[in-house]
Amino acid sequence: MERHFDMELKLLKERLLYMGEFVEKMIQEAVEIFISCKDILMEEIYKKEAEVNKLHIEVDGLCLRLLALRQPEAGDLRFITAAAKINSDLERLGDHAVNIGQNSIQLLKHPTAELISEIPQIADLACEMVRSSLEAFIKKDAELAYTILTKDKAVDNLKNIIFQKILTWICKEPSYISRGLDLILITRNLERVGDYATNISEDVIFMVLGKDVRHPAKLKS
Amino acid sequence: MERHFDMELKLLKERLLYMGEFVEKMIQEAVEIFISCKDILMEEIYKKEAEVNKLHIEVDGLCLRLLALRQPEAGDLRFITAAAKINSDLERLGDHAVNIGQNSIQLLKHPTAELISEIPQIADLACEMVRSSLEAFIKKDAELAYTILTKDKAVDNLKNIIFQKILTWICKEPSYISRGLDLILITRNLERVGDYATNISEDVIFMVLGKDVRHPAKLKS
Repeated sequence: MERHFDMELKLLKERLLYMGEFVEKMIQEAVEIFISCKDILMEEIYKKEAEVNKLHIEVDGLCLRLLALRQPEAGDLRFITAAAKINSDLERLGDHAVNIGQNSIQLLKHPTAELISEIPQIADLACEMVRSSLEAFIKKDAELAYTILTKDKAVDNLKNIIFQKILTWICKEPSYISRGLDLILITRNLERVGDYATNISEDVIFMVLGKDVRHPAKLKS
Repeated sequence: MERHFDMELKLLKERLLYMGEFVEKMIQEAVEIFISCKDILMEEIYKKEAEVNKLHIEVDGLCLRLLALRQPEAGDLRFITAAAKINSDLERLGDHAVNIGQNSIQLLKHPTAELISEIPQIADLACEMVRSSLEAFIKKDAELAYTILTKDKAVDNLKNIIFQKILTWICKEPSYISRGLDLILITRNLERVGDYATNISEDVIFMVLGKDVRHPAKLKS
């Protein structure tokens, strides 16, 4: 019975890690569409979203099953409830990848002369935060999770710089409005990716240390 | 023991309902700032966010306690896991209210001559969806939850109309760019409010019927 429980916990961990890597790749690919002018169809992105949705339901089922049949205590209970929260976060990250993909494809129809260099930067940073937060979860590494929290500010700063650049750009060239809007929405989605990585890291810290760090530093300018 | 369990479940329900009403009011007030030119300070909004964050931690604690000490089964387990998910959704709705408040206050510095009539409409619809989804949760009313799912499309349509109007408006009057951007971000946040109400409704349906309706109709244009 005990061994079976451990095997189910291991499966939960594996599926969640697979889902996390899958979603992170989706975000990277969605950004690549307009940064490297990669020709990807919306259909392909929707297929991947469907895969994430299947994983979401599967992982939720694993969590519920473990809670119902195994009635876990203390550390295991915190692990499973953290897994359930991270599962929801990953599913929403998949939604953000879809949003980014939609705006990227839109953008590609009107290639912009000028690329704002902070956009690839915010994308890299947000994806790195997702990757590290999952690593922190798998390794139960609260220290790593803490370092991720400190990066959220950098994401917000990049977002502000990008918004400012886009506004200046549109003011100079009002015909770029529609493109500017796509870039704003992409940036907004990438900012949210960073927020979700922050949420995952906070859940890891609670899981490992039993310490709730979710809200004190959350007020934003 | 059993009576104690029922009392704790009742407390969980009450706190979640209180939190839901609180958050819904925050969203309404944030929208009122620019629609009715109400002078609200950002500090007041942050205070309310802090209250939501406290409730978030409290409700999470109630859920974890019920899972750990009572080891609930079947229906009760589904109720508690749904409550935990709704709790996260309400906390994020609070974040969206803060975002709307920030953009509203920004907007108020440069009152716009023209109000897009669909903005109060999307705000009303999104708030109504949140209210109804909580009612469905409290009453365990899957039928009501189903009717909420059908409204998400209307929110998306309103969002598209608003975006189009703002773009046309900025093209005619490029100096309105910054205001247009604030309105776009407010609209985007209201669309997300509708999405969260949809999530809550899906969780209610799963809780009541054990049926997962989360993903099939989720692809968006």
